[in-house]
Amino acid sequence: ADPAALAAARAHQDSLTKPRGALGALEEVAVRLAGAAAVNPPPMPFPAALAIFAADHGVHTQGVSPWPREVTAQMVGNFLAGGAVANAFAAQVGASVTVVDVGVAADLEPAPGLMVSKVAYGTADMSQGPAMTVEQAVAALEAGITVARDLVGRGARCLVTGDMGIANTTASAALICAFTGRDPDVVTGRGTGADDETLARKVAVIRRALRVNGLAEGSGGSGSSEGLEGSAGQGDPDGQGGPNVSGGSDGSGGVSGEAPARSALETLAAVGGLEHAAIAGFVLGGAAARVPVILDGVIAGSAALVAAALAPGAVDHCVAGHRSAEPGHAAALDHLGLRPLVELEMRLGEGTGGLLAHPLVCAAVRVMHEVATFDSAGVTDKEA
Amino acid sequence: ADPAALAAARAHQDSLTKPRGALGALEEVAVRLAGAAAVNPPPMPFPAALAIFAADHGVHTQGVSPWPREVTAQMVGNFLAGGAVANAFAAQVGASVTVVDVGVAADLEPAPGLMVSKVAYGTADMSQGPAMTVEQAVAALEAGITVARDLVGRGARCLVTGDMGIANTTASAALICAFTGRDPDVVTGRGTGADDETLARKVAVIRRALRVNGLAEGSGGSGSSEGLEGSAGQGDPDGQGGPNVSGGSDGSGGVSGEAPARSALETLAAVGGLEHAAIAGFVLGGAAARVPVILDGVIAGSAALVAAALAPGAVDHCVAGHRSAEPGHAAALDHLGLRPLVELEMRLGEGTGGLLAHPLVCAAVRVMHEVATFDSAGVTDKEA
Repeated sequence: ADPAALAAARAHQDSLTKPRGALGALEEVAVRLAGAAAVNPPPMPFPAALAIFAADHGVHTQGVSPWPREVTAQMVGNFLAGGAVANAFAAQVGASVTVVDVGVAADLEPAPGLMVSKVAYGTADMSQGPAMTVEQAVAALEAGITVARDLVGRGARCLVTGDMGIANTTASAALICAFTGRDPDVVTGRGTGADDETLARKVAVIRRALRVNGLAEGSGGSGSSEGLEGSAGQGDPDGQGGPNVSGGSDGSGGVSGEAPARSALETLAAVGGLEHAAIAGFVLGGAAARVPVILDGVIAGSAALVAAALAPGAVDHCVAGHRSAEPGHAAALDHLGLRPLVELEMRLGEGTGGLLAHPLVCAAVRVMHEVATFDSAGVTDKEA
Repeated sequence: ADPAALAAARAHQDSLTKPRGALGALEEVAVRLAGAAAVNPPPMPFPAALAIFAADHGVHTQGVSPWPREVTAQMVGNFLAGGAVANAFAAQVGASVTVVDVGVAADLEPAPGLMVSKVAYGTADMSQGPAMTVEQAVAALEAGITVARDLVGRGARCLVTGDMGIANTTASAALICAFTGRDPDVVTGRGTGADDETLARKVAVIRRALRVNGLAEGSGGSGSSEGLEGSAGQGDPDGQGGPNVSGGSDGSGGVSGEAPARSALETLAAVGGLEHAAIAGFVLGGAAARVPVILDGVIAGSAALVAAALAPGAVDHCVAGHRSAEPGHAAALDHLGLRPLVELEMRLGEGTGGLLAHPLVCAAVRVMHEVATFDSAGVTDKEA
């Protein structure tokens, strides 16, 4: 973040015709985006473009979701027909919708709004070995970077992450364990409706996947940072995500684990999904293009841990759209140092929580463009 | 609320292509609005109209605010010039802005967007006796009803409450004490920036105002209702707001206090503000016109207690836009049985919190109009 723009934005906030701090968390959003854009006021983050990255998961065969795998492809059809909640929310906020097939386990008919960047027909079962090869993870990551660059090239001034993938909260929970050092018991949730038995199985499967992939041992400080603002770099100065993950790809830098540290890319490949890899790339691509990236829920939060490990500064461009009902999401946001804007116990994915936050982010930035100062409006300032 | 429309809306929610309950609190918003409108899906609450009711307060002379009284009129000028945060937020969500002078202590220049319905040049000092006569309170209430009717007549399909009045969090806290039976220590906050000394004085002034106006005695169950949905009628079946207030105007119906119960209108007149009275009328007028009314913060919350005491069913049409940083606001919302949509520690007033919630309310309703069902989209339903 640019220190001069941050300072200018803070001073600007305090000159506006409102009591200092009266806009609460929105003031910090505007200041952070000024720092990320290196200019005050930051550009209006409009229009937004939603990219829904879709993929399937080999771990589905372990019975971690009550939904059949085919629903991933069916919901892609629903997005393309305009019938999903993400479409309704996108229409509400004026966002475009692009669906990106990075790993659906079916061949999809070409359609307007569908980009095919298929890396594989779903991942392998992470509870038996790595979900992806590192090469596959990199290919999906690059696909996400490309989508971000294309959308910004076509005029988007804000990116919103979306996902579709039956069983993908299992991969998210595993990534969050690996990057934050927390236990599967704490971060695993019911996803889109797991019952008690399925939830217990899901925790066991995640524990096995972490062990099989050499990510289970090690403990110690999770390096999570607390507070309204910040980046992965704040609580985690060397870009290491957790006890068993290092930012680089050389395999060195373990903090306190007994197993050798795995690189962020190796961890992503081991227990992530193709859409997680693509979303991590989408975050990196948005940051490179210097546009705000609104993160949706737990899938995006876990993918952002990967992006933060690869390039801590990318988090400066991220806004946490909402806090999902999945317990792991709060752990991921804590680690990233991000505060969610909307908290309504939503647990849908698709980008719905990110889209809902978009008008709030626009409102925060608009204040910096349009609101009068005490001086210009002739309003008496109690501090003056 | 219409039971058939409520039931139809719930069944409709469960047929849509999303896991049941996955939209969290937004699902209940859509269902409640269907019940209030007596039709499913409920009409799209767009466009919205913001009315900012402005007035001054005699209690300001007791030193309850760090801001000079003149700021009320100055900020009215700022609203009319388009320079306030409320203007920026209204532009963001496509809402019109109307400023209504119901009691500013100055003669304002005519201007586009300004309605003059001045009942008095501010209230009297509530710590010395009633802030208003009952006739004044009724006149301001009627002004609010008229504004609601006019805005709906001009095409508004959603109303948003706004307020401006230096010292008006003092009147709000006093109203909340009177209607919920809570203590001034618990519900009084720093408003737009009171320091420790001013806060202590504010609590003492509110305590004195309640005593002087015969609203201090009495205790017992506050009748507040908890939970996501409901109305004042739920926890409070006879429409009585608290231990010392009765809904009617006959002075009967005290619950457990030693002092005779005061009617809701007498209580409003005793410790309310002219903008509180007008906002209570605005809520009643919106409910009568069957449009949703998005409540802003603590001023609106305290005014809605008056509206609920007068007509409990009015709360069915209300949506709590946000939860302000003022502690009394949560008490008011608990009593009304409303859950706020946005929680960002804002404490500005003007309608800013209500405006921010408007796109969320639209999104909740839009889902009911546009999202496909499992059947229509050919998506497999795990429950089927």
